[in-house]
Amino acid sequence: MTALLNEDERALRDAVRSFLDKKVAPLVAAHEQARTFPWELLPQLYDFGYVRGGVPEAAGGDELPMMMQAILMEEAGRCWGSLRTTVNVQGMVARVLGAAADAAQAERFLKPLLAGRRFGWFGLTEPDAGSDAGALRTTARRTPDGFVVNGSKLYITNALGCDFGILFVRLVDSGGTDHGVTGLLVDAAESQFGVHDIPHMPLRSTTSCELTFDDTLVPLGNVLGKPGGGLSLGMAAVNAGRLNMAMGAVGLSQACLEESIKFCRQREQFGKPIAGFQLVQQMVVEIATLTETSRLLGYHAARSIDAGEPGRYECSMAKYYCGESAGRAATLALQLHGGAGLMEESPVERYFRDAREATIPEGTSQIQILHLGKALLGHSALR
Amino acid sequence: MTALLNEDERALRDAVRSFLDKKVAPLVAAHEQARTFPWELLPQLYDFGYVRGGVPEAAGGDELPMMMQAILMEEAGRCWGSLRTTVNVQGMVARVLGAAADAAQAERFLKPLLAGRRFGWFGLTEPDAGSDAGALRTTARRTPDGFVVNGSKLYITNALGCDFGILFVRLVDSGGTDHGVTGLLVDAAESQFGVHDIPHMPLRSTTSCELTFDDTLVPLGNVLGKPGGGLSLGMAAVNAGRLNMAMGAVGLSQACLEESIKFCRQREQFGKPIAGFQLVQQMVVEIATLTETSRLLGYHAARSIDAGEPGRYECSMAKYYCGESAGRAATLALQLHGGAGLMEESPVERYFRDAREATIPEGTSQIQILHLGKALLGHSALR
Amino acid sequence: MTALLNEDERALRDAVRSFLDKKVAPLVAAHEQARTFPWELLPQLYDFGYVRGGVPEAAGGDELPMMMQAILMEEAGRCWGSLRTTVNVQGMVARVLGAAADAAQAERFLKPLLAGRRFGWFGLTEPDAGSDAGALRTTARRTPDGFVVNGSKLYITNALGCDFGILFVRLVDSGGTDHGVTGLLVDAAESQFGVHDIPHMPLRSTTSCELTFDDTLVPLGNVLGKPGGGLSLGMAAVNAGRLNMAMGAVGLSQACLEESIKFCRQREQFGKPIAGFQLVQQMVVEIATLTETSRLLGYHAARSIDAGEPGRYECSMAKYYCGESAGRAATLALQLHGGAGLMEESPVERYFRDAREATIPEGTSQIQILHLGKALLGHSALR
Amino acid sequence: MTALLNEDERALRDAVRSFLDKKVAPLVAAHEQARTFPWELLPQLYDFGYVRGGVPEAAGGDELPMMMQAILMEEAGRCWGSLRTTVNVQGMVARVLGAAADAAQAERFLKPLLAGRRFGWFGLTEPDAGSDAGALRTTARRTPDGFVVNGSKLYITNALGCDFGILFVRLVDSGGTDHGVTGLLVDAAESQFGVHDIPHMPLRSTTSCELTFDDTLVPLGNVLGKPGGGLSLGMAAVNAGRLNMAMGAVGLSQACLEESIKFCRQREQFGKPIAGFQLVQQMVVEIATLTETSRLLGYHAARSIDAGEPGRYECSMAKYYCGESAGRAATLALQLHGGAGLMEESPVERYFRDAREATIPEGTSQIQILHLGKALLGHSALR
Repeated sequence: MTALLNEDERALRDAVRSFLDKKVAPLVAAHEQARTFPWELLPQLYDFGYVRGGVPEAAGGDELPMMMQAILMEEAGRCWGSLRTTVNVQGMVARVLGAAADAAQAERFLKPLLAGRRFGWFGLTEPDAGSDAGALRTTARRTPDGFVVNGSKLYITNALGCDFGILFVRLVDSGGTDHGVTGLLVDAAESQFGVHDIPHMPLRSTTSCELTFDDTLVPLGNVLGKPGGGLSLGMAAVNAGRLNMAMGAVGLSQACLEESIKFCRQREQFGKPIAGFQLVQQMVVEIATLTETSRLLGYHAARSIDAGEPGRYECSMAKYYCGESAGRAATLALQLHGGAGLMEESPVERYFRDAREATIPEGTSQIQILHLGKALLGHSALR
Repeated sequence: MTALLNEDERALRDAVRSFLDKKVAPLVAAHEQARTFPWELLPQLYDFGYVRGGVPEAAGGDELPMMMQAILMEEAGRCWGSLRTTVNVQGMVARVLGAAADAAQAERFLKPLLAGRRFGWFGLTEPDAGSDAGALRTTARRTPDGFVVNGSKLYITNALGCDFGILFVRLVDSGGTDHGVTGLLVDAAESQFGVHDIPHMPLRSTTSCELTFDDTLVPLGNVLGKPGGGLSLGMAAVNAGRLNMAMGAVGLSQACLEESIKFCRQREQFGKPIAGFQLVQQMVVEIATLTETSRLLGYHAARSIDAGEPGRYECSMAKYYCGESAGRAATLALQLHGGAGLMEESPVERYFRDAREATIPEGTSQIQILHLGKALLGHSALR
Repeated sequence: MTALLNEDERALRDAVRSFLDKKVAPLVAAHEQARTFPWELLPQLYDFGYVRGGVPEAAGGDELPMMMQAILMEEAGRCWGSLRTTVNVQGMVARVLGAAADAAQAERFLKPLLAGRRFGWFGLTEPDAGSDAGALRTTARRTPDGFVVNGSKLYITNALGCDFGILFVRLVDSGGTDHGVTGLLVDAAESQFGVHDIPHMPLRSTTSCELTFDDTLVPLGNVLGKPGGGLSLGMAAVNAGRLNMAMGAVGLSQACLEESIKFCRQREQFGKPIAGFQLVQQMVVEIATLTETSRLLGYHAARSIDAGEPGRYECSMAKYYCGESAGRAATLALQLHGGAGLMEESPVERYFRDAREATIPEGTSQIQILHLGKALLGHSALR
Repeated sequence: MTALLNEDERALRDAVRSFLDKKVAPLVAAHEQARTFPWELLPQLYDFGYVRGGVPEAAGGDELPMMMQAILMEEAGRCWGSLRTTVNVQGMVARVLGAAADAAQAERFLKPLLAGRRFGWFGLTEPDAGSDAGALRTTARRTPDGFVVNGSKLYITNALGCDFGILFVRLVDSGGTDHGVTGLLVDAAESQFGVHDIPHMPLRSTTSCELTFDDTLVPLGNVLGKPGGGLSLGMAAVNAGRLNMAMGAVGLSQACLEESIKFCRQREQFGKPIAGFQLVQQMVVEIATLTETSRLLGYHAARSIDAGEPGRYECSMAKYYCGESAGRAATLALQLHGGAGLMEESPVERYFRDAREATIPEGTSQIQILHLGKALLGHSALR
């Protein structure tokens, strides 16, 4: 490990791991069962650099190197998938606000968000626009009274639980001209819209919501950045989003490894700990190898960005590989636990459900393959 | 398909599939959400040969060829994992009763079980005896008043929900001599013991119970078969149990295939149905190939038994391969659905959770590998 | 096995296996080293039904059920890949001649071919037309003196070694009109063309030739079937060709299994036969499972055709799965042998090289996936 | 790449890659076909640090950081497997001589070896001692005239081609006492023994020899290091040996990637470059991902050693993962080439054969798994 992290990075990792192990891990089972989330703990986590790390100092953030942010997400993923997802989304909202909010918007949304007093959702995905972000159909029509929004959003993390959000819409002026995809700040205190949670398998302490806009009025001052600049706003967060997903998956694989080692040394069958069986060792070694290669790939992507490279290729490969590996690691960990792994009282049951999410949002594994294929081969195979 | 099934077999499959599609499938989502099970429907299913099929005519059963039983389990698995598991366990209990019950026991337990009026659990697994069935620690001490039972059983399917069970214990006579593993009939109406469900990921409409025996009294007449003959009783059901698990997994893979085809033809991205993308086709073809090879392997095991062969090797290979394949098929099916696959409203979310059970009970995949390895190589690698 | 083959099929399999084990297997190593082939043995093999089996009785063949032909190819593949390929190609030529040769052509080419006195090559593939058979560029221009052929063919099995061949060309009449792909009979005794072997990794006792036609003259009477009917002629053999490749792969997997079992029981390390190690057992069991599922899939395709179904889907799936499985089985077998497996004196070295061919000709695995995907999903993903 | 290597490392990589591309790559095909090796080129390669890099400066070597040595092996593997193996073996001999040779031995063997004037073989493996190095049976009996050696060695790389070797024997004194495994220097100029090459599939420009010792006399002064210290001498080279194998495999995967990209951009089917097909992109992306994760794992192992850690675990994981990945990468690369990949004129045909060696010597993948398993779980599963 000497070779992998420098002293500051190791110190950060040790500190945040210790905090999560002591203050958060003991709460996980109860929150997952109740499908609740300890929002009140977030400010303490932000002090380590979560959420604030991706925001420039000038905008009130901590402006951490990507490598530090990667370590934070890895540790969150090792502890609790619902936590990792929640801070990832807050981080995306903070990142976009940091890049595009005007002074008034920063004061009203970004500042309290970085203090952990307000929480925001990130409203991009639609029923018919999953991997294909350009196909958005939600519209905002400019009127003298404000934007009139119609449409719906799907799988919006924690829209129940947050008090505002960034909504990506197709902006249409009063004359009917389409100005393209645009970000709007939607504050639950001033705009009316439908929200309901869609019951889902992974990440039980988050909600995954459908938002319904039916002539919802949004004040004209709530445009975030330039009209038509929404997709590039969204894309600005995409590299970090993929890397965060990847590092969360690394942490999940690491948790699978630790839990499997512990279990296999305790569990006895046929008169000895199952840790001594070759087939068991092979499965544990496969988890360890997946975890190590995933970690190295994620760190490499982070360090590429910190070295001034765009890192698109590296983040895409990390998202693809770390996500798929976490799915495999969790399947192996559950199998190593036998019947015990199917029970909710075992953490691997949660790891197994949560891991399945790692290959889907922020670009499915298949979408990443086609990004990477285009980069390597110079031909698009998507259309 | 002409080549695969004869006319009678096809007729059975079509009839039961049609019944399940019409009468059971529409009930699944609500029962799974409520974690309830429609016990009252079972007698109608038994009329197709479920449960009765594995019992000799002389004992009141239908004595179906193994191939017919295999088809029944495949269709149950295609419809609903919780149903497949429930009828599988009832079938195991019926099979053991049919082989070992005396006249009074048959009248009291088997007859009402085959009529769908009583339901039984199968109590073999213990906390420290999963794959290693010989390591049972639950004891029954013979006293003049009856057997005094102490110990516990784990992961006993539907022990909540059934009114009696077959309990495998180590029988100790009053003088302290160990007579070996023995089956006892335990009737909730006459014996006191603790039962509680352990919340679990797959098969939400079943319970997976811990049973606790603390000086539980069981009448002396409730010994099933010969004292010390318990393991061979249990093993008598093992081939059928493995094949049933395998065929249930085939049905689950088939359901994944059908649901994926339907979804991919409807879902559009980048301006066309995703069914037209090569990466999608590859995943669907992999599911189809796993399903077809699994089915052929399961049918081959059934026909081997019907041809008078022991079929141990074939059933073990089917259990291993079909179980692993169902896990892979369900993972692919979920991935094909993207975010929609993570939602409880999609059947693939259920398939994914249920499939994970296919590789564990009735001998994990690893145990099957070691059975098969011994058969092929003539050396045991287990101890 | 009782359940898998009927009595006649078992008798055929036993007879041909016994002949191959006794008369052919002992010759393999020397022929492979010398890169020669025992053509003189073929007539004895034809007596079992090789080559003759795919030709109608009316045309002088044995007209065997596809299931019998499948068994023959499986046994050839178990014994020797170069033999399997050679009889497969002779069979394709025989099949096409049986379907399209006129009386004179039958007398001159088919009759001696079925007697094992003449041997033919099958000239379809071109440098720029591999998977895309419609893209042929070799042309035959009709002139009063005969067809004038120009172009080249690639990877034509045993063109060195055969004395005639079926050449697929684009037929152009004297006025320049393109009549489409057409089969020509090219007899080395009457037409001049270049042939040279391209050194290759698998199947050392076959040649894989480039044919060069530079104003080659072919008699007008040598058109096989209807002008423009060439592709459908070629396609008529495609199902059988795929199934034959698949069954050859099954035999190869079976050979890997037998050789691995033998080796692992003899080879000792750490004081005991390696057959007793769990990791070794797992690899052997994986080979066995791949072999068994491959065999079942191939037999199912054969029986589907014998039952009057088209069998396109089944043959395509068998080609895909059995080919990929043979590659995996051979890789495992070699690894089980350790250093010994890398040496030419071990048969697994040959199995490993030969297996690599199983996934390429007669439609690569990727082409089969796209055929199957189209059949399942109703969309072509190829263009 | 900025993030991966420092400036010196990049400079070394660029220089050696450029030399290999210009001076060595053009010779490969002819040497492989003739099964010869350009020994005369080696001194120029040693100037980059090959062979000399693993020897302390005090002993006349270059004493390079392990990371530099890793880069050298990666580039050798990218260019030519037979070269990589040859310099690896010379490096192992140099390393052992550098650690144990006395002054006279160093003058006679090490000095000319580092100058590229003498070449040595490494004689450890025996017919019955592959993975189990402790089971050596070759003996050296001390007599007044010298050691009398009896026994045989197997798969000794380049024993034909080298003029001396390090032979590991069981040393027995005149009284019959066994002193344990000991290294002897065997000079072909002074000792008689049998050598013959065993024809093999991979690495055609190396020999893989059987050595036969039948009362072979070796001078008493040729003991290398302490009697009985042979295994620890051998083991001293084991970490470097594994890492070298791993890095050679990384280079091979990289070559597969480059060749596949080039081919897929040129090869057209169905009217366009196959680079534009999704199934092709997936295979290329899988090769790229395997290559990148392998490289990161190998570099990590090298940097761990350079940071003063033992690196046993890291080198073992790198040997396992990089070797298996190279096998998979080469299989994919060949499949991408279709029929062309089976021909000796394509480099991927060589990559495919050479890759198979990566998982066997210096500890098979299975042996590495059991090393790693023991390190992770604290139980040995080997005996």
